[in-house]
Amino acid sequence: MGMRLNCPFGRKYPSPQPKDDAFFMAMAYNEGIRAWEEDEVPVGAVVVYDRRIIAAAHNRIEARQEATAHAEMLVLSQAARALGGWRLNGCMLYSTKEPCPMCAAAARLSRVDAIIFGIPEHRPLDPNAALPQGLALRNLPNPPHPSVRCGILAEDCYALLRGFFSQRRGKIPPIALGH
Amino acid sequence: MGMRLNCPFGRKYPSPQPKDDAFFMAMAYNEGIRAWEEDEVPVGAVVVYDRRIIAAAHNRIEARQEATAHAEMLVLSQAARALGGWRLNGCMLYSTKEPCPMCAAAARLSRVDAIIFGIPEHRPLDPNAALPQGLALRNLPNPPHPSVRCGILAEDCYALLRGFFSQRRGKIPPIALGH
Repeated sequence: MGMRLNCPFGRKYPSPQPKDDAFFMAMAYNEGIRAWEEDEVPVGAVVVYDRRIIAAAHNRIEARQEATAHAEMLVLSQAARALGGWRLNGCMLYSTKEPCPMCAAAARLSRVDAIIFGIPEHRPLDPNAALPQGLALRNLPNPPHPSVRCGILAEDCYALLRGFFSQRRGKIPPIALGH
Repeated sequence: MGMRLNCPFGRKYPSPQPKDDAFFMAMAYNEGIRAWEEDEVPVGAVVVYDRRIIAAAHNRIEARQEATAHAEMLVLSQAARALGGWRLNGCMLYSTKEPCPMCAAAARLSRVDAIIFGIPEHRPLDPNAALPQGLALRNLPNPPHPSVRCGILAEDCYALLRGFFSQRRGKIPPIALGH
């Protein structure tokens, strides 16, 4: 795990009006910062139902010692508990990066209405990706797919992830763009 | 959930010598029967390390009310706890059916050495499969892949799954082949 280092990025406090994709992604981004503070790869996710956040989580692979403890997996489980059942119809999954194939499939199995992510596939930063970025989402068969939107707060989400890996390599983290 | 019905299939008690793929798959099959007895889709899985079973699990989607509570996901988590860390190098994952894309990706992320399954992709029985069966495994990039073996006890694993769905539809379960 190495030495615990502070996260040089700050949390976002956007206006809650309007509660749009940027607002919810900012909440996912803040979860990503929490991950960094816990020495985890800074990816965060929230689930929104009826325009309210019903679940928020971040990567906890090292804390839980589970390879599958990605932010998206944890937030889908939380959301199921919040709603009292595994069917997440009507829910939107926000993640700071494009979900890996495991998480994309989990979102589909959970029947979320939409997947919204920050960093798109053409910035394949995640060394743990099991498949080429985007393959899982592109190949989701049989309508209704979850709808997909990407690029929300992408520069911030990218700067956070890039900064983390730079710091791990002993470099000075880059200045975050856009805030 | 509907009425709870008994499972008409019996557990297997193979000789523990040799401890080969058929032996370990029989243990996964028995987990599948346990799933049926709990009104879950009968898929079972075990993880083997150093020729010993260190984890065994079955589908628990309804019991846990989590769409991601597939046998393989649960058994990978159990195995990580058993070994005290998320890296499952040296482990073999046995599942009664070809892992869905979520589970295949999870196995890869967990760094298992091998994935061995019963029912292969050309019998795509699982209505919850998020991607066409086999796509995830075929597309695993970058060696070392987990090695893959399939078709172990396939007729039995198939009869169990087919029988379950037949019973759910109110039909008489078919006679199981091979035992």
